[in-house]
Amino acid sequence: MSVTFASDNNAPIAPAVLRAISAANVGDAVGYGHDPDTERATARFREIFGADTGVYLAFNGTGANVMIFGATLRSFEAVLAPATAHLNTDECGALERITGCKILPVATGADGKLTPALLQPYLGHGGDAHHVTPRAVSISQATEFGTVYTLDELRALCEVAHAHGLFVHVDGARIANAAVALGAGLRESTRDCGVDVLTFGGTKNGLMGGEAVLFFDEALHGGAAEHARKQTTQLASKMRFIAAQFEALLTGDLWRSNAAHANAMTARLAERVAAIPGIEITRAVETNAIFASLAPAAIARAQAEYFFYTFDRSRPEVRWMTSFATREQDVDAFADALERAVSR
Amino acid sequence: MSVTFASDNNAPIAPAVLRAISAANVGDAVGYGHDPDTERATARFREIFGADTGVYLAFNGTGANVMIFGATLRSFEAVLAPATAHLNTDECGALERITGCKILPVATGADGKLTPALLQPYLGHGGDAHHVTPRAVSISQATEFGTVYTLDELRALCEVAHAHGLFVHVDGARIANAAVALGAGLRESTRDCGVDVLTFGGTKNGLMGGEAVLFFDEALHGGAAEHARKQTTQLASKMRFIAAQFEALLTGDLWRSNAAHANAMTARLAERVAAIPGIEITRAVETNAIFASLAPAAIARAQAEYFFYTFDRSRPEVRWMTSFATREQDVDAFADALERAVSR
Amino acid sequence: MSVTFASDNNAPIAPAVLRAISAANVGDAVGYGHDPDTERATARFREIFGADTGVYLAFNGTGANVMIFGATLRSFEAVLAPATAHLNTDECGALERITGCKILPVATGADGKLTPALLQPYLGHGGDAHHVTPRAVSISQATEFGTVYTLDELRALCEVAHAHGLFVHVDGARIANAAVALGAGLRESTRDCGVDVLTFGGTKNGLMGGEAVLFFDEALHGGAAEHARKQTTQLASKMRFIAAQFEALLTGDLWRSNAAHANAMTARLAERVAAIPGIEITRAVETNAIFASLAPAAIARAQAEYFFYTFDRSRPEVRWMTSFATREQDVDAFADALERAVSR
Amino acid sequence: MSVTFASDNNAPIAPAVLRAISAANVGDAVGYGHDPDTERATARFREIFGADTGVYLAFNGTGANVMIFGATLRSFEAVLAPATAHLNTDECGALERITGCKILPVATGADGKLTPALLQPYLGHGGDAHHVTPRAVSISQATEFGTVYTLDELRALCEVAHAHGLFVHVDGARIANAAVALGAGLRESTRDCGVDVLTFGGTKNGLMGGEAVLFFDEALHGGAAEHARKQTTQLASKMRFIAAQFEALLTGDLWRSNAAHANAMTARLAERVAAIPGIEITRAVETNAIFASLAPAAIARAQAEYFFYTFDRSRPEVRWMTSFATREQDVDAFADALERAVSR
Repeated sequence: MSVTFASDNNAPIAPAVLRAISAANVGDAVGYGHDPDTERATARFREIFGADTGVYLAFNGTGANVMIFGATLRSFEAVLAPATAHLNTDECGALERITGCKILPVATGADGKLTPALLQPYLGHGGDAHHVTPRAVSISQATEFGTVYTLDELRALCEVAHAHGLFVHVDGARIANAAVALGAGLRESTRDCGVDVLTFGGTKNGLMGGEAVLFFDEALHGGAAEHARKQTTQLASKMRFIAAQFEALLTGDLWRSNAAHANAMTARLAERVAAIPGIEITRAVETNAIFASLAPAAIARAQAEYFFYTFDRSRPEVRWMTSFATREQDVDAFADALERAVSR
Repeated sequence: MSVTFASDNNAPIAPAVLRAISAANVGDAVGYGHDPDTERATARFREIFGADTGVYLAFNGTGANVMIFGATLRSFEAVLAPATAHLNTDECGALERITGCKILPVATGADGKLTPALLQPYLGHGGDAHHVTPRAVSISQATEFGTVYTLDELRALCEVAHAHGLFVHVDGARIANAAVALGAGLRESTRDCGVDVLTFGGTKNGLMGGEAVLFFDEALHGGAAEHARKQTTQLASKMRFIAAQFEALLTGDLWRSNAAHANAMTARLAERVAAIPGIEITRAVETNAIFASLAPAAIARAQAEYFFYTFDRSRPEVRWMTSFATREQDVDAFADALERAVSR
Repeated sequence: MSVTFASDNNAPIAPAVLRAISAANVGDAVGYGHDPDTERATARFREIFGADTGVYLAFNGTGANVMIFGATLRSFEAVLAPATAHLNTDECGALERITGCKILPVATGADGKLTPALLQPYLGHGGDAHHVTPRAVSISQATEFGTVYTLDELRALCEVAHAHGLFVHVDGARIANAAVALGAGLRESTRDCGVDVLTFGGTKNGLMGGEAVLFFDEALHGGAAEHARKQTTQLASKMRFIAAQFEALLTGDLWRSNAAHANAMTARLAERVAAIPGIEITRAVETNAIFASLAPAAIARAQAEYFFYTFDRSRPEVRWMTSFATREQDVDAFADALERAVSR
Repeated sequence: MSVTFASDNNAPIAPAVLRAISAANVGDAVGYGHDPDTERATARFREIFGADTGVYLAFNGTGANVMIFGATLRSFEAVLAPATAHLNTDECGALERITGCKILPVATGADGKLTPALLQPYLGHGGDAHHVTPRAVSISQATEFGTVYTLDELRALCEVAHAHGLFVHVDGARIANAAVALGAGLRESTRDCGVDVLTFGGTKNGLMGGEAVLFFDEALHGGAAEHARKQTTQLASKMRFIAAQFEALLTGDLWRSNAAHANAMTARLAERVAAIPGIEITRAVETNAIFASLAPAAIARAQAEYFFYTFDRSRPEVRWMTSFATREQDVDAFADALERAVSR
């Protein structure tokens, strides 16, 4: 299968990232992150996000998310998250299984975004032993629907969370796509808005595999994050090869050019799709995903040519996604295929 | 650092494995293992271990181990393991944290090996609600001390376990080194002895990173292992790149030549070391690890030149380990350094 | 404090129940349920619910609920429950903590009742490793709002659950109040409708403390429930004294007369309250609870005289509850106090 | 069955305790411990153990133990305990299941007692993410073998624990029997020796059912213990009836006279047994338990007349236990029976 529009994790490894793995493959290196590659990647993250950033490389997003809450929550503390959050719906209950803590799912609008108003009913009730105590807010940036919190929205959420003693986690599996959409820097669109801990996504933006957990508050991770990473099975022995990938991603703003390309390809596709009668774009297109509604028969015809997911069979609603590796001609051919599929 | 004798996980990626990653890096591939590379690696495992083998690729050994028990144990069931097992001492309590189940640690001799006699006191007591019920025996092959269960020993353990309704797990982080030491095939030294589930190690034998969970009994994993892998955070999205590594390892018996080389380098080192007054080899040398006792000052002098671990500060006892990448000249130079260290 | 309208757990021990404790207090008895009192209570439950009923006495409702799911769910299986279920909101996340499993909360109407239509979106998706698999439906009868599922509603829920491989749990902390409201027998209103496992409430209906877990399907609890009870800390050593309480409750239909009285007292209060301007009854009154809305100042004045809970400060909505021990004159005096409170 | 020698939990309720339950059974009382009986019991505990004692009533010993560690341990922290501790062997893995933490079992001598020397190998290794970090020492006083730590032994253990940042938990299911054996007060034999948290046993010393968790260090439980109690299913709704029992036990030193009587009955039995050829007392008799070895046929004959447990079938070794309710004539008749059993 050479081209899919299913997910940015269907993409290959970005060439510079693969070269970096090769380049790191020289001689022995001490395991578990005590190596120069990990040192350099860590230093690069600290240049970008601040010298006091706690940096923990991990294998994948589910692991990174769980590790964060494993390091920070007490047994009776809970996470407020959109009901549609990956953390809540797509990680097979890993958070509950591994931390024993509860996610309090909050219903949102079609954009999948939390707001201070949506948080309100859950705040200010702490202390009663019959109920779990909200301790964290977790949001995805970009969201599972490809939408993006504005910097103002982020600041407002962080403010209300902090005012009630909650910390803010951003699941940034697609943080690069969001930063590009915002026209903002990585730190500017996370830590500077008040975010306390970030899952920095690598895999969906050109890595072979790797995510980074970045803590911006020493009090949150000090003394627990290293153990939590090991305990949640996310400590790589040959960590230099994850580190080398991140170093490549953070060099020459590859993170930005990869994400910008992915977003641009989606924009190109959205423009074509918007003009096709019989396809309705169902949610705002802001990064590298399009959600759309079309007839079941048309979906079937398109899926016979291209692999992509039906997101909600009941409407039906599909998701199309592009990556750093999607080419203009791929988009155009796919749009043609969609046109054929709906017009028959 | 170009040469260490600390662990086989300090080694780089075997060249053929890295080439395989490169070769897999073409176009899109569906995520989470629904790709042709994973299909091929799975087929290769089934050729070797039997067509009904359940194959689940994972990131690392701790994850693979935990996934197995997460898929198989009920809440009140327990695992019998040597007190010195990696599972018990070196995984930061991941099994207890993630499965909630108990490891019943069994004291062993210096070889770190369980025997039917050592298991006896734990068997036949099931049913009482006050106590956990042993459900599995987990052993490491090779052991954490580099020793190897003979095929007869394996068969005897499996027999007593099965007779009491327990299944047998082999933590095969170094199964290739053990098979080479036994002069036996992979299936011959695991499934054919009665082993029910195997953590097949890749990382320590030349992979960038990857382990495979192999179930030989459908009743053990059916319907639970896929979910358990996801839930223990071990499901890779770009799985083709783990699969490609395994395909390389299983092609042309690279697994065997890599392990044979590692074992040979340790044998070479052991021969030299045995002749050095002031160094006492403390455990049988059977695969790619040497445990030895020497004066603290000598240890310090040797560690000033080479990185390796002090295993037990109280004796003191150190561990030296070789890998597929260790060269004869590295061994000789290290032996010279040890000679200098003890003779001063 | 001699009279409250806060909860039926504010009530004392029913005299016959206390006498039964005294009567059981003769000589030694083997611990952990291997005693004649437990045998008799078990036999009595089996007379009522069927000879093959699995009977497990426990300390409290949270423990009984958790024990059930600890005995029945695999790590990736989940429970569908109303978002307002005690299990979901009032047990401090005990289910997630102890079983590691997820509750999938379903939003309901003001009556707090699940319907087949509300379950529909969660059914039929099993098998995908990214998501937890619904395995059980848990409802409260009576609900947390004092409303009651009709026998037809129960049958319909059980049918749809069973058709999708889910079992049905009833949290019957107030099952007696519900059965009385339905004019039905205990078995008729649970097992005969298809319910698979019942938390049979004792504490709120006159016991000093005790709940019974009743399994109607051997396949659900066989081999796991005894251990799950111990592991969830619900195994009483001097179990005869819990058993004796249940024997008293099940003798001469004390369970029914106690519950009937509690319901009647609430009906009496509801009749008075309905006639008081300034108090709006907010939910159907069907058992022993009234939810009502009145001015904050009126609430404050009433609470100065009587202890009861404000259920939802935002509306505000309060809850009043009666028990087997509430007297007619208590109700009348309380109604007078409410009248005074709103009229000032 | 009127008399057993199996366990002090086979005993009935002490008359004064049952009277206290009756006396508390007047009118309504707010649930979950917000009642005058709980207030008075708490005050009484604070008189005895210090005004700043954190007092949490619970249902049973397993629950109390688990609640303590659920409130205090982080996910990667572990408990050092004798391998024979009730916590480790007789609670069906509840601690691991509920807290996810690991018990590090330490082999002891026949007295089942930890010593500073036995702890030594586990101390001073903190900080490595591969291993759990010992955070607590848990001992039973009296031990599972009826032996008693001297005040000096307790002080020495607490000292070494505190010096390494560990807190000390005493599982005092039989703390009263131990205090009587030591001729010491309750505080003198716990808090004053450095103990940080105590499971204060009631059930085995005359209660119908109830244990108290007593924290002597605010930093250990503050903000977590209330939630941990609820979450481990140990929060009683009608708590006044547990509180009233404790008030009775702590009034007029009933705790002491009950325990003194139990110990005296065991001493009386031990004196008789010591003179019976064919019975060998296997462990020091210091409180209310005797461990003894006699021929299997003799055990069978004695068990035909009296219920007691075979502790270790392999030796074989039995356990005999007396309680506050055991009478002199019961002891004498039992000794006669033993004599007959061995002499035949």
